[in-house]
Amino acid sequence: MVMVRMKVVGTATRVWRIGADDPRKVMHGLKVGLALTLVSLFYYTRPLYDGVGRAAMWAIMTVVVVFEYTVGGCLYKGFNRATATLSAGALAIGVHWIAAKSGHKVEPVILGASVFLLASTATFSRFIPTVKARFDYGVTIFILTYSLVAVSGYRVEQLLTLAQQRLSTIAIGICICLLVCVLICPVWAGQELHLLIVRNMEKLADSLEGSVEDYFTEDRIADPKSTSPSQKSQGYKCVLNSKASEDSQANLARWEPAHGRFGFRHPWSQYQKVGAAMRYCAYCIEALSGCINSEIQAPESIKKHLSDVCMRLSSQCSMVLKDMSSSIKAMRRSQGIDLLVADMNEAVQDLQSALKALPSQLIQGTASPQREAASDEKHSISVTATLPLMEALPLITVASLLIEISSRIEG
Amino acid sequence: MVMVRMKVVGTATRVWRIGADDPRKVMHGLKVGLALTLVSLFYYTRPLYDGVGRAAMWAIMTVVVVFEYTVGGCLYKGFNRATATLSAGALAIGVHWIAAKSGHKVEPVILGASVFLLASTATFSRFIPTVKARFDYGVTIFILTYSLVAVSGYRVEQLLTLAQQRLSTIAIGICICLLVCVLICPVWAGQELHLLIVRNMEKLADSLEGSVEDYFTEDRIADPKSTSPSQKSQGYKCVLNSKASEDSQANLARWEPAHGRFGFRHPWSQYQKVGAAMRYCAYCIEALSGCINSEIQAPESIKKHLSDVCMRLSSQCSMVLKDMSSSIKAMRRSQGIDLLVADMNEAVQDLQSALKALPSQLIQGTASPQREAASDEKHSISVTATLPLMEALPLITVASLLIEISSRIEG
Repeated sequence: MVMVRMKVVGTATRVWRIGADDPRKVMHGLKVGLALTLVSLFYYTRPLYDGVGRAAMWAIMTVVVVFEYTVGGCLYKGFNRATATLSAGALAIGVHWIAAKSGHKVEPVILGASVFLLASTATFSRFIPTVKARFDYGVTIFILTYSLVAVSGYRVEQLLTLAQQRLSTIAIGICICLLVCVLICPVWAGQELHLLIVRNMEKLADSLEGSVEDYFTEDRIADPKSTSPSQKSQGYKCVLNSKASEDSQANLARWEPAHGRFGFRHPWSQYQKVGAAMRYCAYCIEALSGCINSEIQAPESIKKHLSDVCMRLSSQCSMVLKDMSSSIKAMRRSQGIDLLVADMNEAVQDLQSALKALPSQLIQGTASPQREAASDEKHSISVTATLPLMEALPLITVASLLIEISSRIEG
Repeated sequence: MVMVRMKVVGTATRVWRIGADDPRKVMHGLKVGLALTLVSLFYYTRPLYDGVGRAAMWAIMTVVVVFEYTVGGCLYKGFNRATATLSAGALAIGVHWIAAKSGHKVEPVILGASVFLLASTATFSRFIPTVKARFDYGVTIFILTYSLVAVSGYRVEQLLTLAQQRLSTIAIGICICLLVCVLICPVWAGQELHLLIVRNMEKLADSLEGSVEDYFTEDRIADPKSTSPSQKSQGYKCVLNSKASEDSQANLARWEPAHGRFGFRHPWSQYQKVGAAMRYCAYCIEALSGCINSEIQAPESIKKHLSDVCMRLSSQCSMVLKDMSSSIKAMRRSQGIDLLVADMNEAVQDLQSALKALPSQLIQGTASPQREAASDEKHSISVTATLPLMEALPLITVASLLIEISSRIEG
């Protein structure tokens, strides 16, 4: 009994947190409720109900199925539903007319064959990537409408009035959807994508700085096992698997009209490129943190020798990333970005020369009797020290790529 | 005109290749066509049509919407549709009865408020991860059925007969779907997941071996810019972004009954863990290939010193991975895996001692006048040579993890 109550409370807390973290999700639920109630009452009032007849259910169905979280999703589904219903309906009425002309025996054969052919090809077309990305829902509706109309068994004249009714109800459903979706707290897929990219870039900057800091701070060396990596340095993990959500949002954003500071034909695919570059960075940080947490640790003396340079490099890198993210956020070319990149490159040079100076230190070490120990040190330090450098290289690539992109976004 | 023809031919070739690469996709199209034709003809024959009435369209709708590529997807949607329709229908009839009792004026208020409340909460519940993963489709159908029944405006007795008709047609639709889906060339989500994991592991093994080989072969050194990385070494790239498809397939596989060599309650979540471990490996290979293609290259002499050990380590690693993949494929514990892992660990030791021997070589180098050059060499070699080692560490972790998992799968 206590167990059950614990579980219920736990679930409730989690659900509450989903709502509290993002009130727009609650808002979305209310919006769907509002749109549905509007449609329902619209058809519940008798005069209208008698006028449009049974087709009322198509309006409700349209609202339930078309209403999506983002405006882009709503537009995508609405457009797909409207065009698919229209084209499939027209085609089905045509085939129906031909079948009706050709006599009672051939009629079911023609209809059955046409349903089979169209359903097969349409289903197969969903495996084509472009169709999948843009018209997946439309294809489903196309098959559905075609088979419903073809099998209905009405005469063509009846079908025409039916089609007219159905189209008008679907149009009403889509209009109510779009009005509620756009007018009440709209959630734009484009803006979501924009914020996601900015947030991920900030997380990347934080975790790059955080993980290098973690490594070089004193208490960590004293007790390497007990101290867990700081929260800050784990941010890159959600960048690793962001591809799917970025792609889908970029797809939906293409359907949206100009909104906010985003014009028509905003270069959404550029966001995907920036996302790919950031994922590449995140892979490097993942590898870096693997090294930092590995069992082989560099001795303190060599660590100290490199700590300043490494820390400086990582903070320069994260400054570049942060500047980039704020310039993307504001959608204008950053003034200081060139300077910051130059600073970062300088820090890379410093680290390189610090590494060059290492062997001479080590040779002093090998002059002492613990020759074996020194070489051991050498090996482990090389694991840890070269990584920031190695990681800096793609960072620079990314940085220059980002500069180009930010200038394009600004344009 | 020529342009248009070129484009058409290009698209046709691409579409053809999709079909030729995976004939099951074509088969899927034909299956959908078959199922739809069956349902259509079933309802087109008059006696049945008159018996079940307009509800025939629900059977067609069910087939169009429920038929999915994998058996798991089909079962998931069928189950969701059936339970959601049943529960929402029962609830709506109950509310309808109460509303009808409470007088003409209050009736639309009660119905409208209940639609609003249920639609809002149900839509919000879709943001809860577990609901999203398992019952997303069911929630949509729940909202749809509830609003349709609540708004219908029939008397309760009429509703009951209507509900009975509708449920029977939906049941017929789901049965036809499942029969066609399971009996004709079934595509099991579980098997797909199994093959995906095996294939990805093989790709990982190939690309690990390939990229290290590419680096150490002679002609690459002679002309580092012109030779592009071999096809083989690029296989890890599809492992990087495999998370989404693995997750969805594992989700669907849970719905499937025992099939082939997979028992009921097969540990599908283990596959997700193996997938995560492999992705971690792929991140390392990504970092490694970044280093290999970087501008700073180690001089030949030091490369030669390490090439044998590195090559051996990478081939050992890839042998372990390949053995693992074939043991997962056959679903039994591999005989030689312990031996191979021991070999791999030995190769790691060898590489470590080779790295330890490096400084002594370098000291000989520094005895000569080109001291600066030697330290430069040292730095660049450390970039290239330590990476296989650094990467070997997670590999060993992954390997031991995989041994555990493969033994579990076998059990």
